[in-house]
Amino acid sequence: MKKHNFGAGPGILPESALEKSAAAVLDFNGIGMSLLEISHRSKDFDAVMVKAKSLVKELLGVPDNYSILFLQGGASTQFAMVPMNLMKSKAAYVESGVWANKAIKEANLFGEAKVIATSKDKNFNYVPKGYTIPNDCDYLHVTSNNTIYGTQMKSFPESPIPMICDMSSDIFSRPIDVSKFDLIYAGAQKNMGPAGVTLVIIKNDILGKTGRPMPTMLKYETHIEGDSLYNTPPVFPIYVCMETLVWLKSIGGVAAIEKTNQAKADMFYAEVDSNPLFVGTCEKEDRSNMNACFLLKNPEMEEEFLKMAKDAGIIGLKGHRSVGGFRASMYNALPIESVKVLTQMMNDFALKKA
Amino acid sequence: MKKHNFGAGPGILPESALEKSAAAVLDFNGIGMSLLEISHRSKDFDAVMVKAKSLVKELLGVPDNYSILFLQGGASTQFAMVPMNLMKSKAAYVESGVWANKAIKEANLFGEAKVIATSKDKNFNYVPKGYTIPNDCDYLHVTSNNTIYGTQMKSFPESPIPMICDMSSDIFSRPIDVSKFDLIYAGAQKNMGPAGVTLVIIKNDILGKTGRPMPTMLKYETHIEGDSLYNTPPVFPIYVCMETLVWLKSIGGVAAIEKTNQAKADMFYAEVDSNPLFVGTCEKEDRSNMNACFLLKNPEMEEEFLKMAKDAGIIGLKGHRSVGGFRASMYNALPIESVKVLTQMMNDFALKKA
Repeated sequence: MKKHNFGAGPGILPESALEKSAAAVLDFNGIGMSLLEISHRSKDFDAVMVKAKSLVKELLGVPDNYSILFLQGGASTQFAMVPMNLMKSKAAYVESGVWANKAIKEANLFGEAKVIATSKDKNFNYVPKGYTIPNDCDYLHVTSNNTIYGTQMKSFPESPIPMICDMSSDIFSRPIDVSKFDLIYAGAQKNMGPAGVTLVIIKNDILGKTGRPMPTMLKYETHIEGDSLYNTPPVFPIYVCMETLVWLKSIGGVAAIEKTNQAKADMFYAEVDSNPLFVGTCEKEDRSNMNACFLLKNPEMEEEFLKMAKDAGIIGLKGHRSVGGFRASMYNALPIESVKVLTQMMNDFALKKA
Repeated sequence: MKKHNFGAGPGILPESALEKSAAAVLDFNGIGMSLLEISHRSKDFDAVMVKAKSLVKELLGVPDNYSILFLQGGASTQFAMVPMNLMKSKAAYVESGVWANKAIKEANLFGEAKVIATSKDKNFNYVPKGYTIPNDCDYLHVTSNNTIYGTQMKSFPESPIPMICDMSSDIFSRPIDVSKFDLIYAGAQKNMGPAGVTLVIIKNDILGKTGRPMPTMLKYETHIEGDSLYNTPPVFPIYVCMETLVWLKSIGGVAAIEKTNQAKADMFYAEVDSNPLFVGTCEKEDRSNMNACFLLKNPEMEEEFLKMAKDAGIIGLKGHRSVGGFRASMYNALPIESVKVLTQMMNDFALKKA
C-alpha cells in the first residue's frame, strides 16, 4: 500500500518520476546501459541536462540573463558559497528560522552578517515584516519557507540591494517573479527531486565583484562556464528532478500546483482551527502551505494520535526534534486525498476523545 | 543487449546493484515508499548508512581510529578541502596527471604546494618515483591512478609525513594498507557506485591543527560529528554504493577482484603488445589495471576501428579529449568476457588490415 507521506524531506515525489527513474536505472533510453553507468558527457545525459534546465527556465519564467546550475552540497553549502562569492564587507539577513540562522553563521566567516529582522522572540512562529533594508549592504538574504517552524513568506520585499533567497522548501510550489531575485538556491529534496542535487538560479552580472580568491568548486563562475559539468555532476538526482519537472509541467505548472497546494493547506488548517484537540503553532497570516506545524493541546494524547496515524498509513507527522509536536508537510506531489485522510483521521480522533 | 562498457566514468556497475537500486526507487524494503522519498533520518536509511560504512571498513580493513564519510562535491571538492583542513603552510604534491594538477592548484590557495616530483616531461606517461619526501611539509599528496593517462602507482612510498591519496579511479580494485594513509578520498563513480557521492576515509587525529576558520560544510569535523548526516546526504548514490560493495564482498572482496582485474589487464595489454596495429602509451611498469590507454599506429584507421567496436557492442573506448587515441577502462564490474570481446575485435581488425 502506498503511504500518505507527510514527511518534511526528502519528501514525496510523483509516481511517474519514480517509475521512469527506476526504469532508467535498469536500461536508459534502450541503450543497453543504466543511467548510472553512462558518461556525464554522453549525448544521452546531455539531453537530460538540457531538458532539466529548460524546464526550470520555463516553469519559473527565468529571464535570459540568469544561469541555471545543478550543484552538489545542499543548501548548507550555499550558506557559505553565497557570502564567499558575493559579500564584499557586509550583508543583510532576515532571521526567520534555523536555516536562516545557519546562513548567518556562515556569512560571518566572510564579513559582517547584519541581522536586520528576526522572529526569534516568538520561536520563529511568524515571518518578520516591515523592516528597512539598508542600502549599504552587499545583498539581502531571505528564506522563503521555514520547514521547521512552518512559516512562509507570502510576499517578498522590494529590495534596493540584490536579493538572495533560500527557496529549498517551497520552490516550484507557486509562481515567483525570478527577476526580483539575484540568486535563488534550493536543495532539491522537497518539491523538485531527491536528495543530492541543489538548484541555483543566478543573475550573471552579480558575480566577480569581491576579488576574493576562492576554491574552484565554490566559485559560481566555474559552474556557469562549465554548464554544471565542470566535474562529474550528480547524474541520477538530476534525472529525477527532470522527470519531476516533466510531471509538474504536465499538470499545469506552478500556477496550477499553487491552487492545489492552497486547497490542501486550506483543508488542513480548517481542520486544525475547528478541531477542539489541536492548535496551530504559527501566526495565521504566515502559515506555510508546505509545512503545517500543529500541536495536540494535551500532549499526553500524542502517542495515541501517532499510532492512529500509522494505522491509517500516514507517515512523517512527527515535528522536528527542535520544536516537538506535529508537522504535516504537503509538498507538490502529495495528493489532496492524503490530506483528506489526515483531516478525517484528526476528526475521528476528536470524536473518539469527546 | 547489454553493452561492453569500457567507459572511464561514471562506469559500469554490477547488475545486482542496479536491479536492487531500481527496485528501491519503486518501493524500498516494502515500506510503501520509494527510497527517494524517505527521511535521511529514518531507521530504513540509517540501516543503509551503517551497512555502507561497515562494508567500506571490512573490505578495505579500515582501522578503528579512522572515520568513514560519504560527502558531496566529488574529488574536485576534496582538492580544496584537503589543504583547507590540513595545510598549515606547505605540502608536498606528486604531479602525476591532470587530477594531481588540479589538486595542486587548489592547494596553492591555502599555502605552498611544493611539487616534489612530476612526470609532466613525458606527458604523464609514467609514475614519478625515487623522490625525496621533505620532512617539513604538512603532508604528502599522491594520486593512485591516473584515469586520463592510464598510469597507476603499483606501490606507495614510505612517507615520513601524513600521506593523502586521491584513489578516485582505483579504490576497491585491490587491497591497500589504509594505515599507511592519513586521508583517502574517492569520487564513487568508477568502482564504487554512481556519480554524486564521495568517499573520505580519514585518520581522526590529523584534524584541528591549522586554526583556519572554515565553512561548516568544508570542515571534516562537521561530517565526522554528524556521521555524514550533518545535512541531507545523497541518499540514493549512497544506497547504490552499499549494494555495489555487497556485490564486491559476495565475489570475494578486494583480494579476489584484484586477481580478476590483473587477469583482465594482462589479457588486454598482451593484445596491445602483440598486435602490429596498436601501441600502448605508458611505461609498462606503470600501466594502470583500470584505464588502459593505447593508440593505433596509423591514426587514419581510428574511425573504422571505432565503428567496428560499436558494431560489436563495445562503448566508451575513445580517449580523453586531452590525449586522444583510445582508452579501455576495466573497472571492477566489467566482466572478463568484455575484455575478450575487445581483444578479439582488435585481433580481427589486424587480420582485416593485414
